[in-house]
Amino acid sequence: MAKARQDDSSSDTAQRRLQMADIARLAGVSTATVSRALNNSPLVNAETRGRILELAASLKYSINIGAQNLRLKQNRSISVLIPFDRKSHQNLTDPFLLAMLGSLADALTEQGFDMLFSRIPVDELGAAAAAPFDSGRVVGIILVGQWGRHEELNELAARKVPIVVWGAQLPRQLYCCIGSDNVSGGTLATEHLLAQGRRRIAFVGDIDLPEPAQRYRGHCEALARHGIAVDPRLQVSSPFLPRGGREAVETLQARGVDYDAVFACSDLLAMTAIDSLRGHGRRVPDDVAVVGYDDIDQSAYFHPRLTTIRQPIGAAGRAMVTALLAMIDGAPAASAQLPTELVVRASAGEHDHNG
Amino acid sequence: MAKARQDDSSSDTAQRRLQMADIARLAGVSTATVSRALNNSPLVNAETRGRILELAASLKYSINIGAQNLRLKQNRSISVLIPFDRKSHQNLTDPFLLAMLGSLADALTEQGFDMLFSRIPVDELGAAAAAPFDSGRVVGIILVGQWGRHEELNELAARKVPIVVWGAQLPRQLYCCIGSDNVSGGTLATEHLLAQGRRRIAFVGDIDLPEPAQRYRGHCEALARHGIAVDPRLQVSSPFLPRGGREAVETLQARGVDYDAVFACSDLLAMTAIDSLRGHGRRVPDDVAVVGYDDIDQSAYFHPRLTTIRQPIGAAGRAMVTALLAMIDGAPAASAQLPTELVVRASAGEHDHNG
Repeated sequence: MAKARQDDSSSDTAQRRLQMADIARLAGVSTATVSRALNNSPLVNAETRGRILELAASLKYSINIGAQNLRLKQNRSISVLIPFDRKSHQNLTDPFLLAMLGSLADALTEQGFDMLFSRIPVDELGAAAAAPFDSGRVVGIILVGQWGRHEELNELAARKVPIVVWGAQLPRQLYCCIGSDNVSGGTLATEHLLAQGRRRIAFVGDIDLPEPAQRYRGHCEALARHGIAVDPRLQVSSPFLPRGGREAVETLQARGVDYDAVFACSDLLAMTAIDSLRGHGRRVPDDVAVVGYDDIDQSAYFHPRLTTIRQPIGAAGRAMVTALLAMIDGAPAASAQLPTELVVRASAGEHDHNG
Repeated sequence: MAKARQDDSSSDTAQRRLQMADIARLAGVSTATVSRALNNSPLVNAETRGRILELAASLKYSINIGAQNLRLKQNRSISVLIPFDRKSHQNLTDPFLLAMLGSLADALTEQGFDMLFSRIPVDELGAAAAAPFDSGRVVGIILVGQWGRHEELNELAARKVPIVVWGAQLPRQLYCCIGSDNVSGGTLATEHLLAQGRRRIAFVGDIDLPEPAQRYRGHCEALARHGIAVDPRLQVSSPFLPRGGREAVETLQARGVDYDAVFACSDLLAMTAIDSLRGHGRRVPDDVAVVGYDDIDQSAYFHPRLTTIRQPIGAAGRAMVTALLAMIDGAPAASAQLPTELVVRASAGEHDHNG
C-alpha cells in the first residue's frame, strides 16, 4: 500500500483531485459522501453508493487513493510536535527523537501529507498543542512523548481534537496513544542479561517518566522470577541526554556498588555509558554487559555493536499516521502497543566471558 | 538575540501581534510600513516614522521582535525540504540530515516560526520546491542540499522565490547558498593525516557531488603541497548511506591498494568504514587512521572517538534562517561559507603509532 500511495502523492495528485471533485459534483453529493461510499460505509445507501462507484469507474478514478484524500483536499498538513523543557532548553539532537521525526516525515510523505513541525515548551503543552488545529492550519496532531501532561492530553481528546500521542499506555487514558510494549521490553532485556549469568544489573533511566517506569517494572518482574531482590542502589534516574550515560556510570562508581551489567533506557544512554565505562577501565561486555533500548541505526555499527531492545521506529511513524488519518476520517482509532524485540549483538552477546 | 526571541515566541506572542496590528491601524498605514519604520528604512518619511515610533512606544511594543514579524503575522511558516531519490527512496535516517533538521527546527522556534517539512522527489525538485510558497502556505523555503539541481535552483531565484539552500558555492549561482568551506575542510583533514606520517590516504566520497568534489580538491591540493602524487585507486565514490563506508573498505581491499589512512566525507561513512576495517582485522588508528566529516554528536562517544572536520551544524540552522528572514524582509541575503574546523580525537590522533 505504501508503494502505491507513494506514486499517488507525487505527479498524479492534481489530476486525481480534480476527478474526485468531479465525482461529488456529478453525483450531487458531498465529497464526504463520496469518501464514505468508496469506503463501503453503511452510512451511504446502496443506490447512492452504486451511482458513485459507477461515476468513479467512468472517470477512471482509483479508489486506492484513500477516502481521507477527498475530504481533506484543501488541507493536507499534519502538526508534529516535539516539546522542549524550558529549563534545559535541550536542542533537538536526541537520535531517537530525530529518528522518530524522520519516520513520521516518511510516513506522511507516503500518504501525501506535509508535516507542520513545531517545538513547544512543555509547560504550555496543553494550550499550545491544539493551536495549529484550532486555527485550521492542520487537520490533526501527532505528539511525540507524553511529557508528564496526561491530564492536558485527556482534555484535548475530550474536546475532540484529532491527536495521536507516542508514549506509554496509562490508566484513564482518553487520548489515542501509540507506543511500544515497555514492560515486555524491560523483561526481555533483563531476562537476556540473567541468561548470560549477570546478577548485578544496573538500571539506567528516569523512573518518574511513564515509559522508563514500565521498563523498570518489567526489569523487576524478571528479577523476581529468578528470586533476585531489587537493589535500589542499582537504579539511576538519568535524563535522556548525551551526558546521561556518563553521569549514570559516575553515580554507580561513586556509590561503590558492585555491578556486572547495565540496562539503559535508550541507546544514547547505553553508548555514552559504554564510553564512560571504557574511561574507568571496565571492558564491555567482559566486565560489564550493556543492553540499550530503541535500536537506532547507529547501534549496528557502534563498537561494541549494541545489544538492545528494538522499538520499531519505522512502523511507529506509519502506525501513528494511520491512526490519525482514521480518526480524522471519523473512524475509531484505538491505542496500540507495538511489539518490542531483543536484538543480540556484542555488547551483551551470546559469547559472554562471565556467563 | 536568540534568547530574547525565544521568549517572544512563546507566551507573549499573541499579545505582541495584537499590539503590532494596533500600530498599523492607529497610524493608518500598512503593517509593511510599520515594519520599515521600525527598521529605519529610508522608504518611510520622517513624519510617518515619528508617528509610528511614538505609537510603538505608547503601546509598549518591543522593537526587538523584528520587522518580519509584523509583515508576516498571518503566516509564520517556513518550508523545509529534504528531497529523496526516487530510485533508492532512502528513508530519512542519515544522522547529518537529521541533525540539520533538528538545527533548523531549533532556529525557527527561536524566531517564532513553524516548519512545514516535506520530502519531495529529487526529479521534481524544480517544480515542487516552490509549491508551498506559490500557494501561500509558507513565506519562504529552506532546501537542504543542492541535489544536482543547480539550474532549477537558479530559475527559482530568478523568479524571486525566497529560498535559501544548504550546499556548495558554485559558479553562476543566483540563489542564496549557505554551506561550509569544503575546500578548506578537505585540506585540514589531509594536512592532519600527513602530519601524522600517513602517505597513502584513501578518499571516500562521491566526487560527482559538489561538496565532496570540493573536499577532494582540498585533499589533492594538500597532497600536491607535500609533493605526493594523487593515486586515483585511493578514491572511492561512496554514497552517503550506512552501507557506504562498508562498501568503500570492500572496494579498497578488492583493489589490493595499500592505504594507511581514510578520509571519509561524512562521519556516517567514517563510522561504518571503521566497523568494516575492524572486520578485516585492521586496527584504527594503528593500522589505518580515519578522519570523518561533520562532527555529529555521536562522533564524541564513538569508539575510537572520531577525528573529524566539524561543520557547525547548530550555527548552520541559524545562518540559513537568518538569511531567509532577511530575504523575505527585502534585504539582500548574501551566500556564505561557514568555517570548518579540525577536531582531533582518537581515530587519527596525536598519539599515532605509525607517525
